[in-house]
Amino acid sequence: MAQQISIPKGTRDFGPAEMNKRNFIFKTIQSVFNKYGYSPIETPAMENLSTLMGKYGDEGDKLLFKILNSGDYTVNVKPEDFNSQNLSKITGSISEKGLKYDLTVPFARFVVQHRNEISFPFKRYQIQPVWRADKPQKGRYREFYQCDVDVIGSNSLLNEFELMQIIDDIFSELKINVTIKINNRKILSGIAEAVGEADKFMAITVAIDKIDKIGTEKVCEELRKNELSEDAVQKLIPILENKRDTSGSIEFLENMLSASETGLKGIEEIKTVFEYLNSNPLKTKVELDLSLARGLNYYTGAIFEVKANDIEIGSICGGGRYDNLTEIFGLKDISGVGVSFGADRIYDVMEQLKAFPEATAKSSDVLFVNFGKKEEAVCLKLAKTLRQNGISCEVYPEKAKLDKQFKYANNKNISYVAIIGENELNAETVTIKNMAEGKQENILFSELSGYFNSQL
Amino acid sequence: MAQQISIPKGTRDFGPAEMNKRNFIFKTIQSVFNKYGYSPIETPAMENLSTLMGKYGDEGDKLLFKILNSGDYTVNVKPEDFNSQNLSKITGSISEKGLKYDLTVPFARFVVQHRNEISFPFKRYQIQPVWRADKPQKGRYREFYQCDVDVIGSNSLLNEFELMQIIDDIFSELKINVTIKINNRKILSGIAEAVGEADKFMAITVAIDKIDKIGTEKVCEELRKNELSEDAVQKLIPILENKRDTSGSIEFLENMLSASETGLKGIEEIKTVFEYLNSNPLKTKVELDLSLARGLNYYTGAIFEVKANDIEIGSICGGGRYDNLTEIFGLKDISGVGVSFGADRIYDVMEQLKAFPEATAKSSDVLFVNFGKKEEAVCLKLAKTLRQNGISCEVYPEKAKLDKQFKYANNKNISYVAIIGENELNAETVTIKNMAEGKQENILFSELSGYFNSQL
Repeated sequence: MAQQISIPKGTRDFGPAEMNKRNFIFKTIQSVFNKYGYSPIETPAMENLSTLMGKYGDEGDKLLFKILNSGDYTVNVKPEDFNSQNLSKITGSISEKGLKYDLTVPFARFVVQHRNEISFPFKRYQIQPVWRADKPQKGRYREFYQCDVDVIGSNSLLNEFELMQIIDDIFSELKINVTIKINNRKILSGIAEAVGEADKFMAITVAIDKIDKIGTEKVCEELRKNELSEDAVQKLIPILENKRDTSGSIEFLENMLSASETGLKGIEEIKTVFEYLNSNPLKTKVELDLSLARGLNYYTGAIFEVKANDIEIGSICGGGRYDNLTEIFGLKDISGVGVSFGADRIYDVMEQLKAFPEATAKSSDVLFVNFGKKEEAVCLKLAKTLRQNGISCEVYPEKAKLDKQFKYANNKNISYVAIIGENELNAETVTIKNMAEGKQENILFSELSGYFNSQL
Repeated sequence: MAQQISIPKGTRDFGPAEMNKRNFIFKTIQSVFNKYGYSPIETPAMENLSTLMGKYGDEGDKLLFKILNSGDYTVNVKPEDFNSQNLSKITGSISEKGLKYDLTVPFARFVVQHRNEISFPFKRYQIQPVWRADKPQKGRYREFYQCDVDVIGSNSLLNEFELMQIIDDIFSELKINVTIKINNRKILSGIAEAVGEADKFMAITVAIDKIDKIGTEKVCEELRKNELSEDAVQKLIPILENKRDTSGSIEFLENMLSASETGLKGIEEIKTVFEYLNSNPLKTKVELDLSLARGLNYYTGAIFEVKANDIEIGSICGGGRYDNLTEIFGLKDISGVGVSFGADRIYDVMEQLKAFPEATAKSSDVLFVNFGKKEEAVCLKLAKTLRQNGISCEVYPEKAKLDKQFKYANNKNISYVAIIGENELNAETVTIKNMAEGKQENILFSELSGYFNSQL
C-alpha cells in the first residue's frame, strides 16, 4: 500500500551530485587539518541530557531534540505532573538523551572524560552532523554538518595564528575570496570598563554582535534598553563605527583602554597575532574589527569571523579562544582555541561562484555498453584491467538499446563510452566516445589502459 | 560545578587512533565502490515514524529510538490514554520522528521519493550510522555504521557477480582472508515446496538461518515447533548437512527440485552466477551453501554472506536480491540487489589480525620543537614550505622542556622530530631525529623538503 513519502522538515537527502560536491569541501578541509597535525575524533549523535542541558541558554534547551526512553517510559511520570502539564518535569521523566546541538560541548565532555588518554596540547578536528529544532527556513536546517578544529591545553597565541593559516589555506584551495576579521574579548571587556559599564559586558557583546544585521542606531537602542547610560552609548559609537586600519585601531585602543588591565592584555594579544601575520603573511586579508563580538558567551580571548568577499552571506567560519569550557565538566585551567567551518554556507557560496571543480560532477570514467553475452564477457575482462589501473568503470548490466545506454552515461556524467560490437570484437579494438567532445577513436584492447591513463 | 560525565550506554567516542583505523576501512570500501561506478548518497538521521514503523517487525518497532515532538508535545495526549498507560497511543501523540534503524528502508524511501531524478539502474552506496535500542553487549552497539552498496532497477545477474567482485576487491585490499557464501531464496522456496511445506517457507528460512549458531538438532527442534511434519524435517536434514561441492550441490538440487518451477529458476540463477565466476575467477573462495538463509524477509533471489576464515566471528558482510522493497512506498516492479559491510566487525577482525597498515597509527610526519621566539620564527617558515610539499607537520606551540616536546611527539606517533637550536640556527641546518629508528641527521634548511620527500 502506498504511503505518504517525505522526510522530517528541515532535513535533507543528498543525492550523488550534491554528495560529490559536499565531499570535495570536506576532503579539502580535512586534508588541510591533517597537514597541520590535527587528528580526527567522533562523538555519538546522542548525549545524555545532563551533558547538554543548560549549556546553550533557555532557548537552546528548547531546541534540543530529545529522545524518548526505551520500554515503558511512562512509569516515572507522576499523574499530577501530567495533569498540570508540567512540561519540564514530564520531559525529565520520559527522556534522558538528546541529539547533540553542536560539537563544542561534546568536545569539552570528551576532553574531560578522556583526559588521562589525551596528550596535551590536544589538536583535534571533528566533522559531524548536529541537530537543532529551529524553525526551518532558507539556509537553516534542523540537521547540518559542523567542521570544528580546536587545540586545547595551550595558551600560546601561536595557535591563534595557526588557525588563521588553516583558514587561509582552506579558502584558497576552495577558491573563495574571503576576509578574516579578528577581535579580542578582553578588548571588549576593556571597552565595557572604559565606558563605565563593566558589569554589562555580556549585554554590550550581544548588542554589538548584531551590528552587521541591524546597524549602529538599532544597536544603540538595544544598549539603552539594557540600561546603559547615554554617556556610555555615546562613547561606544566610535567603536561601532571605527574605520581605522589595524595600527590606527590599536593606537586608538591604547589610549582608550590605558586604565584597563584586561583591555591592555587584549591589545597585547592582538599585537602578538599581528606580529605573526607580518612575519608570515597570509594570502587572505586580515582585519582587526572592533565591532566583531560573537554571540557565544564562552569566549575569553581572540575571536574570529570569516566573510566571503564576493557574496552576500553571513560568516562562513568563526570561533575564538575559551578559557573555561571544560570547567562545566569539572576540569579547570585548560584553555583552548578553535574555529568552526560552516559547510552548508560554504557549499552555497561555491555554487554561486561556480567554484566546484568539474571533476566533482563526474561519476565513472568509462561505461562499457552491453550488446549481449559474447561482448559482455570481453567487456568484463577489460573493465577489470582498467580498475586495476585506477580507472573507474562500469559494464552496463544487461543488453539494452544503445540510446538507453548512452542516456545512462549522459545522466551519470560518465566521461567515456566504450563500444565493443561484432566488428570491434573481431578486430580486438574498442570504439571510444569522448562524451564531452563527441569525438570517437578506435583503440586496441591491449592499449586501453594506457589510453585512459593518458586521457584522465 | 563538576557533573557526572558519561555517554549513553551502547554508544562510543572515537579518539584519533581509532578514527584513523576506521577511516582506513571506510576509505578502502569507498574507493572500491567508486571504482565500480557506485555513487554516494546520504539520508537524514531522522525519518518520519510512518516511514520506519512496521518495516522491521514488532520487535524492530520497539528498538526504534523515537524523538519527542518539539514544543508542548503533551497537547495531543488524551488523559484516558495516559491513565490507562496506552503506550502506543501515547507514543503516537508525542513522537512523529525516529532515528534510522538501517540504511535499507531509508534507501527504498529515497528511491521512491526521488524516482524522477534518478537514472536507473541506480548504483548507490551509503556509509552512515544507524541506531537501535538493543541491549548493549560485547560487539553490539546502539549506534554503529553501516556501509551499504546496492544497484536498483536491473534484474541482471551481472549485478550479483559485480557485488562479489567488490567484496573480493575490498577484503583483498584490507588483507582479510574470507569465504563468500552464496545461496538463493528461490532454491529455499523450492526446497520448502519439495518437502511439502511450501506455506512454511519463512519459518523454514528463519530456522535454517540459525544453523551456524545452534546446529542441526536444534534447528530441527525449531522446525517441529513450527509444526513441520517429521517427514519434512527428515528431508531437510541432508540440506542442512550438505557437504557437496558446488557442482555436486547443483546436481543434487536439480533432482530434488525438478517439480518446483521456483526452485529450478533459483538453480538457473545460481548457475549463471557461477558461470560469471568461472570466466572471471575471484581471489576469494566462493561456496554455494544450501544452509545459508539470511534472517530478513525481503530477499527474493541471491543471498550472500562473507565469513573471515582465520577468526571466529559472525558474518562481516551480507546481503541479497529483493524484488519488492520499494513496493511498501508505492513503487512496484523494481528489483535490486545489495550488500552491507559491517564496519565494526571488520575493525575487530583487523585488530585481531594486526592487519592495519602502520601508517594508520601515525599523525603528523614532523614536529618542530620550540626553543623560543627566535627559533620558532624559522620553524614557522620551514613548516610552511614542508606543508606546501605535502608533508604534514606542526610547530610545538610554545617553548617547553625538550623531554616534554619529545613525549608529545611520541604519544602522537610523529615520525620525525626537527630540532633547531642556537647551533642549527647559525649553521642553517636542522637536526632530524627519526623517532622509530632513533638515528639523527643534520640537514640544510634548503634541503629539508627534498629530504622528507625521499624519506616519507
